Amino acid sequence: MQVTRTLARYVVDSNLEDIPRSVRNEAIRSLVNWVGCAVGGCRHESVDRAMAAISPFAGPHQATILGRNDRIDILNAAFLNGISSHVFDFDDTHLRTIIHPSGPVASALLPLAEYHPCSGAELLHAFILGVEVECRIGNAVYPTHYDIGWHITGTAGVFGAAAASGKILGLNEQQMVWALGIAGTQSSGFREMFGTMCKSFHPGRAAENGLASAFLAQQDFTSSDKVLEAPRGFAHVMSTARNFLEITEGLGTTFEILSNTYKPFACGIVIHPVIDGCIQLRNENSLTGDEIESVELRVAPLVVELTGKRNPQVGLEGKFSVYHSAAIAFLFGEAGERQYSDTCVGDPRVFALRNRVVDAIVDPAIRADEAYVNVTLRNGRVLEKHVEHAVGSLERPMSDRELEAKFHGLAAEILTKDESDRLLKLCWNVEMLEDAADLGKATVPHRSVAQIQR
Amino acid sequence: MQVTRTLARYVVDSNLEDIPRSVRNEAIRSLVNWVGCAVGGCRHESVDRAMAAISPFAGPHQATILGRNDRIDILNAAFLNGISSHVFDFDDTHLRTIIHPSGPVASALLPLAEYHPCSGAELLHAFILGVEVECRIGNAVYPTHYDIGWHITGTAGVFGAAAASGKILGLNEQQMVWALGIAGTQSSGFREMFGTMCKSFHPGRAAENGLASAFLAQQDFTSSDKVLEAPRGFAHVMSTARNFLEITEGLGTTFEILSNTYKPFACGIVIHPVIDGCIQLRNENSLTGDEIESVELRVAPLVVELTGKRNPQVGLEGKFSVYHSAAIAFLFGEAGERQYSDTCVGDPRVFALRNRVVDAIVDPAIRADEAYVNVTLRNGRVLEKHVEHAVGSLERPMSDRELEAKFHGLAAEILTKDESDRLLKLCWNVEMLEDAADLGKATVPHRSVAQIQR
Repeated sequence: MQVTRTLARYVVDSNLEDIPRSVRNEAIRSLVNWVGCAVGGCRHESVDRAMAAISPFAGPHQATILGRNDRIDILNAAFLNGISSHVFDFDDTHLRTIIHPSGPVASALLPLAEYHPCSGAELLHAFILGVEVECRIGNAVYPTHYDIGWHITGTAGVFGAAAASGKILGLNEQQMVWALGIAGTQSSGFREMFGTMCKSFHPGRAAENGLASAFLAQQDFTSSDKVLEAPRGFAHVMSTARNFLEITEGLGTTFEILSNTYKPFACGIVIHPVIDGCIQLRNENSLTGDEIESVELRVAPLVVELTGKRNPQVGLEGKFSVYHSAAIAFLFGEAGERQYSDTCVGDPRVFALRNRVVDAIVDPAIRADEAYVNVTLRNGRVLEKHVEHAVGSLERPMSDRELEAKFHGLAAEILTKDESDRLLKLCWNVEMLEDAADLGKATVPHRSVAQIQR
Repeated sequence: MQVTRTLARYVVDSNLEDIPRSVRNEAIRSLVNWVGCAVGGCRHESVDRAMAAISPFAGPHQATILGRNDRIDILNAAFLNGISSHVFDFDDTHLRTIIHPSGPVASALLPLAEYHPCSGAELLHAFILGVEVECRIGNAVYPTHYDIGWHITGTAGVFGAAAASGKILGLNEQQMVWALGIAGTQSSGFREMFGTMCKSFHPGRAAENGLASAFLAQQDFTSSDKVLEAPRGFAHVMSTARNFLEITEGLGTTFEILSNTYKPFACGIVIHPVIDGCIQLRNENSLTGDEIESVELRVAPLVVELTGKRNPQVGLEGKFSVYHSAAIAFLFGEAGERQYSDTCVGDPRVFALRNRVVDAIVDPAIRADEAYVNVTLRNGRVLEKHVEHAVGSLERPMSDRELEAKFHGLAAEILTKDESDRLLKLCWNVEMLEDAADLGKATVPHRSVAQIQR
């Protein structure tokens, strides 16, 4: 069975007309979500430090670094976009494999569009194919590949970036096979890096290396024809089990991007049902923090295991505190990056309400996307909420309106409201763009960050 | 046990005065051998194609691409040097791990010296430390790591490149720990790529990624503090067995570069004993090909298994033919790249003598570096040679004179004899160089390749 060649041929032969409307729509939603994340994260110190390190060696100013006034060569732009879009851990999730699929693929495509002209429809098509490639490869080796310790967004993502970039470049079948081979032999990234700057480094390098693989293959730089299936190839070397049918069956019929999900809240997905319940109670009852006497939570065991921190001191620790998360949900009605800042974690009102959330009750019968929230008010009233499926889950996806609110929330630190509106509109209308390069360019603020924040 | 930190601290604290004379001498021999290989391979089409692919995105002309008139940013120079130095498979071998140690380390250091001024002694010191790091990490996971399918020159090499580059940059202990972490999370490269351009791509990317890791760490880009030993770190994720004492014991006392070996012949090491025997018989008896009636070989089983090709058609196939190798050894008294060219494989005199080498006799009692060669002359005389240890083995290392002959043979396609002499002298005297940048610059030919070959 020629796994690699079958996949390469599918990518090369695919026509946009063969992609169902529903698939394109979900891809556009993925882009909207992802562009917001990339713009929102573009001033993170991880991006600043990476830029400082590579700038002296970078090439021509070919492409936008999303959200920034700086331009750089397209390979380094792909690298930096990958970091900024994942640094908040707020991007999309292919739940079956825990791949964050947009990062490696879109980080490469947006700069490429500024160098190799293509339409918005072509970009969207390549994006769908790139996501298809990386998620199918992920499906073939998940969960053993992940369990060994590989950060699958990086290891599978590099294939997606290569396939998408190669599609834009118009590689022939043999070159696409080589592009996947060159990408695969760079597949890397340990889960050991979680909690350090190297976590978002992974989708960055995957985007950059995948893009470079496509350019190398375009020059007939050769690699193995069987990087996926060979006894010494990806699926055998980097996983203890594998199912190649996940890669080759249903190509052109099923689409992995339809299983993509978006995070409504800027923290680990296990806390989302609790936050969802708190926000619903707040909004349905117009609650203020002062009215709340105490909060009781009944949750799945993993919630306390992973996010049981009672007294977070800094923003990052807040993301691992279900108590902080419940407090900010009641107080602000949202749980974005701002609610997980050092300032917010130290806010006396947050601190006070956090201490009125009693220790969570663990119930093994509760599913991962489920939670019970009970609130006792100072006036004695008790309010209850059962969240069956948290918002953002496949069963209850974020609405377009919710995605827009998230987008503006992320972009607000970087862009004016007008710029944010214009960028969002371009994302929704990506298929109509004559020149896909407009997308990246529209992320650049016209005023400095200092001016916007004033 | 803090494996990564122990190794990082050793590299940061090491002083050149603590490195024994014998170790420095072997490092210089490694450099001589490696520079010759890099210059010799610099016009290979793998290098040309890689250059064509990356040039549009490359940065300032900061460093020499060894052997070429082109200059490029130091990261891409490291990448291209890694390809050219390994493309002939003629570089050095750390026999215990089959790592080709100089490639990843020296490919990064020579460009770095053109950007960040350092003396030749500092470069040599960093080179010794880089080789130490990669070979110790290799020792800790060999052979299971290699057996899984990892190309250890790439996977371990990236650590060596990071350590050596970080030493030149003067990283502190924490930054060196991060540099190893950033390098490790890029560790990659499948043996599946052997026989394609991606084989030499591996030391190229290892050099580039290791060098980039050092610059990222210099900017305090963080990574795990335990990339080597963590349960989800390198040694657990990428190997089924490991011994961390190989990394931490005897630091500063034992030196892996003392186990480095150099190939006298431009083919797989298993044929070397046969070639050695043939050349000895030829030289001791002033034999010409015409005098030879037949050649009989008694060899280790692996020789026929790997190199039993009777009728090679092109140069690369010649490298997998013990029969071709015996023929060219008798005819030319050497087995360099020229003897494995398409032209030489098709030469009627070579063809004729090749057919007078009878099928090799396999003897499991014969060691890998041993062979018996019997020649029957047309006049009825029979000559015998038993090679106990092939030249180039640890037991019978190539002499400095032999290394020089190899160097000039490789450089002859690129440099004039005067240029080759001057470069060789700089390599031998590297410790005396005030500016290590002189080394890379001296590899640049003053006349075009076409002029030299005329």
